[in-house]
Amino acid sequence: MKLALAQINPTVGDLTANAVKIISLLDEAREEEVDLVIFPELAITGYPPEDLLLKPQFIKDNLQALDLVVKKSRGIAAYVGFVDQKKGRLYNAGAFIVDGKIKTIYHKMNLPNYGVFDEKRYFHKGRQPSVVSYQGLKIGLGICEDIWVETGPHRAEVKKGAKLIININASPYHVGKVAERQKLLSGRAKKSQAYLAYVNMVGGQDELVFDGGSMLFDPRGKLAVSCDQYREEMLIVDLENDRMKTAWMEEELEIYSALVLGTRDYVLKNGFSEVVIGLSGGIDSALTLAIAVDALGKDKVHAVYMPSQYSAEQSRQDAEKVARNLGVELSVIPINDVTAAYLDKLNPNFKGRAADVTEENLQARVRGNYLMALSNKFNWLVLATGNKSEMSTGYCTLYGDMAGGYAVLKDVPKTAVYQLVKWRNRSGEIIPQSVIDRPPTAELKPDQTDQDTLPPYDVLDRIMAAYVEENKSVKEIVRLGLAEETVRQVIRLIDRSEYKRRQAAPGPRITARAFGKDWRLPITNRYHA
Amino acid sequence: MKLALAQINPTVGDLTANAVKIISLLDEAREEEVDLVIFPELAITGYPPEDLLLKPQFIKDNLQALDLVVKKSRGIAAYVGFVDQKKGRLYNAGAFIVDGKIKTIYHKMNLPNYGVFDEKRYFHKGRQPSVVSYQGLKIGLGICEDIWVETGPHRAEVKKGAKLIININASPYHVGKVAERQKLLSGRAKKSQAYLAYVNMVGGQDELVFDGGSMLFDPRGKLAVSCDQYREEMLIVDLENDRMKTAWMEEELEIYSALVLGTRDYVLKNGFSEVVIGLSGGIDSALTLAIAVDALGKDKVHAVYMPSQYSAEQSRQDAEKVARNLGVELSVIPINDVTAAYLDKLNPNFKGRAADVTEENLQARVRGNYLMALSNKFNWLVLATGNKSEMSTGYCTLYGDMAGGYAVLKDVPKTAVYQLVKWRNRSGEIIPQSVIDRPPTAELKPDQTDQDTLPPYDVLDRIMAAYVEENKSVKEIVRLGLAEETVRQVIRLIDRSEYKRRQAAPGPRITARAFGKDWRLPITNRYHA
Repeated sequence: MKLALAQINPTVGDLTANAVKIISLLDEAREEEVDLVIFPELAITGYPPEDLLLKPQFIKDNLQALDLVVKKSRGIAAYVGFVDQKKGRLYNAGAFIVDGKIKTIYHKMNLPNYGVFDEKRYFHKGRQPSVVSYQGLKIGLGICEDIWVETGPHRAEVKKGAKLIININASPYHVGKVAERQKLLSGRAKKSQAYLAYVNMVGGQDELVFDGGSMLFDPRGKLAVSCDQYREEMLIVDLENDRMKTAWMEEELEIYSALVLGTRDYVLKNGFSEVVIGLSGGIDSALTLAIAVDALGKDKVHAVYMPSQYSAEQSRQDAEKVARNLGVELSVIPINDVTAAYLDKLNPNFKGRAADVTEENLQARVRGNYLMALSNKFNWLVLATGNKSEMSTGYCTLYGDMAGGYAVLKDVPKTAVYQLVKWRNRSGEIIPQSVIDRPPTAELKPDQTDQDTLPPYDVLDRIMAAYVEENKSVKEIVRLGLAEETVRQVIRLIDRSEYKRRQAAPGPRITARAFGKDWRLPITNRYHA
Repeated sequence: MKLALAQINPTVGDLTANAVKIISLLDEAREEEVDLVIFPELAITGYPPEDLLLKPQFIKDNLQALDLVVKKSRGIAAYVGFVDQKKGRLYNAGAFIVDGKIKTIYHKMNLPNYGVFDEKRYFHKGRQPSVVSYQGLKIGLGICEDIWVETGPHRAEVKKGAKLIININASPYHVGKVAERQKLLSGRAKKSQAYLAYVNMVGGQDELVFDGGSMLFDPRGKLAVSCDQYREEMLIVDLENDRMKTAWMEEELEIYSALVLGTRDYVLKNGFSEVVIGLSGGIDSALTLAIAVDALGKDKVHAVYMPSQYSAEQSRQDAEKVARNLGVELSVIPINDVTAAYLDKLNPNFKGRAADVTEENLQARVRGNYLMALSNKFNWLVLATGNKSEMSTGYCTLYGDMAGGYAVLKDVPKTAVYQLVKWRNRSGEIIPQSVIDRPPTAELKPDQTDQDTLPPYDVLDRIMAAYVEENKSVKEIVRLGLAEETVRQVIRLIDRSEYKRRQAAPGPRITARAFGKDWRLPITNRYHA
């Protein structure tokens, strides 16, 4: 049997366009004499449709879009994810379509409701494993989480003679996920003594990045072929003619590509084509610029350097060098005059009080306002440049450097920023060594460095990972060999910055737990242990 | 039997303080010879603890706090909400404690996972209804959602002879909820031919406001007594000696009180004592100021009037009058110079382009920056003043008038703003008639009014309610008698403003669906029907 793994990038809510994309791949596959084309989970609606699912009209329109696909499937078979409705109940469903007719519909039996997933908010559980016979082959159907559960439908389906299991997915990327998937799937195929076709979605959707990497395993559990990550692909494979798997990406390329795809899709799917970035001369904004250029092309990216009295000459030179290396035009807008004008007017209120964080934040907010003004005037989306270490500890200014529509490095710890910059420079210096070597500084007061306020980033990032990704307590983190005082300091900072994060822009998720859908902490909260 | 309905206001995460509060009420009740004190759902942790529940240490600490309560319950009985853990699984639980020992633990059987609720993210379902015998009376236990489900545990418990059902709650307020509760509970009591004690939490927690209003019904379904709304109260009642129910609040008082409590608790529980508000001379900021003064006292509230070249003299007079009437000192900080300084520096970039929304937003952002500077300098929380009609249509400026820690009117439609102002003026003009009579304007360009851009607010609010609260489609809303063009315009505005709402401050929820936990729409979304 000739299969096509159709790893597509649908857009949430764009029902007709998603159906048209599916249909055009069916046409292409028919030309290639493919027997069965497999599309991702909820390919019709995009994933996750979230509260669009509460709109009755949306459900109807999704069924109509599926109908369009069914009608255009003459002479071929397909397995397509959509939202089914029976007796007023919604199901995360897969339609097995043969030659212009729905042969069977499978309802997802295992609904994830943890991490970034809220499926129990919308869907009812399916009750029936499903085996369909097609061209003499028994095929077991499943959707995403189903294959992760040992007692999932595949077990019953194999008992009923299934020799091919197809599992369709909208599986978001995080570091290490590819290896997890491959290990699990290989085991399932082997145990089942059946082929296992795993088709994933690709594309960015708000904070989630679906990385693709669809795979076919043989009945011994060997990975036969796989799609690339981060791009649409229809991989055609003959079950009897396995090919060898090519290598997966190295970690830095994988992370970097997730950031690029997340950024590109957020910008383009939201109807923008150009972006603007505040370049400070520091490493975060330099990396953000590189990612933006790789996502959108240098002509679509605008950079602004906004110096104050505290900006070092080195910062300007570095900002200019980064922009030049990436081929991006750089504007310069100094912020001193405006900042002084604010403070002048605030004088009667401040009555000679000493300068403090107020004056620092004000500078960041003047910069934020300039970026937003450029955004408003030219319809450029502002990309915020803060990293995860800052976002966690609140070492960032609300409406200042946090201003923007998308925060590219929001889930990238500072230590990973360095790692990615090194990697991006692998075939020639794009981000100058001086940017990498200078101690990080916000340049909001004289001789400031981040480490005046924060512990060294390697320590901070270890504490952050333990606290944020692993829910460890102070005591447990201390037991990892970290100083209790430092642990308490970082956790206090993380806890009390919740109000800032709640007003932050979304950004692409690359770790096992980002400050997004999978981080739901109360703002009002007195627990700090 | 002598019951006490202990309608308390716990703070999320403040485990020890919550336990101490419970213990002090037990002491008080013992003095009054009360037999059984009933506390709200998750009284130990506060509600909702959200992802604190994913921290193993939090669960342990909550069990310790319960243990403290148990030890201090000599000579009395109590039913207390807490988080139970069995074999690694979490349960939303109630401990029935008698004389220093836990007599039985009930696990909530019906877990809400819709609207603002995410209980299936954390908890497993309980499997057992529970009847406990105490002083010769059989008592059926339940928690919140359990009583809303017709086949809930109360049914089995009544069959087993329960003559008193106790149901503990963290039931958030919205308009009309009190009547819904009373109707349902009355029916359940009558059907059960048992007393029904319904104890609710009180207090604000981020966007949720728990309004209290705990109730006792007799076995004929008659409401015997009830607690006040919006304040802590321990109501002692003898089952054999029912008293008459006093009247519920009128709607305006009820909504207004929700806004006051939500604001007070957000400010105080987050460690602030003072707030600052930008007074524009318009009705929204005037109402916000009144609510803040009623929540915190006039000495804790600071107002700033920030005129531009477009501000009418009337606006200044009205702002001054409102501040004077409420006894709040008013600062004046003009924004023209700073705005001009920004535009001067932007000149080379803007290259003579015509003024547009950029210049309007800039003014709003200058005001936002002033408020944030005052916030930073004096540790005043900024209260944002935008209403729900603006928040839905995006008629507001990100980092401008949207800047702030708490958005008091975020869930109050403009038409309700007028209603509340009229009500607040009932015993003397606080908000001048001229504020009420002037056509709403953002005063960001000459002779601007909201209705240059938006349909009349009564029309907008009807469309908004149908679309946001009822998930109706364009077609269905048109069928309500509204012009299709207007409906499409409003819905387009609502859909494309999602990115703004995602970065908005929280605010108290008063409708059946607020732009908060119960509104989870994707930003990237091409569905608009």
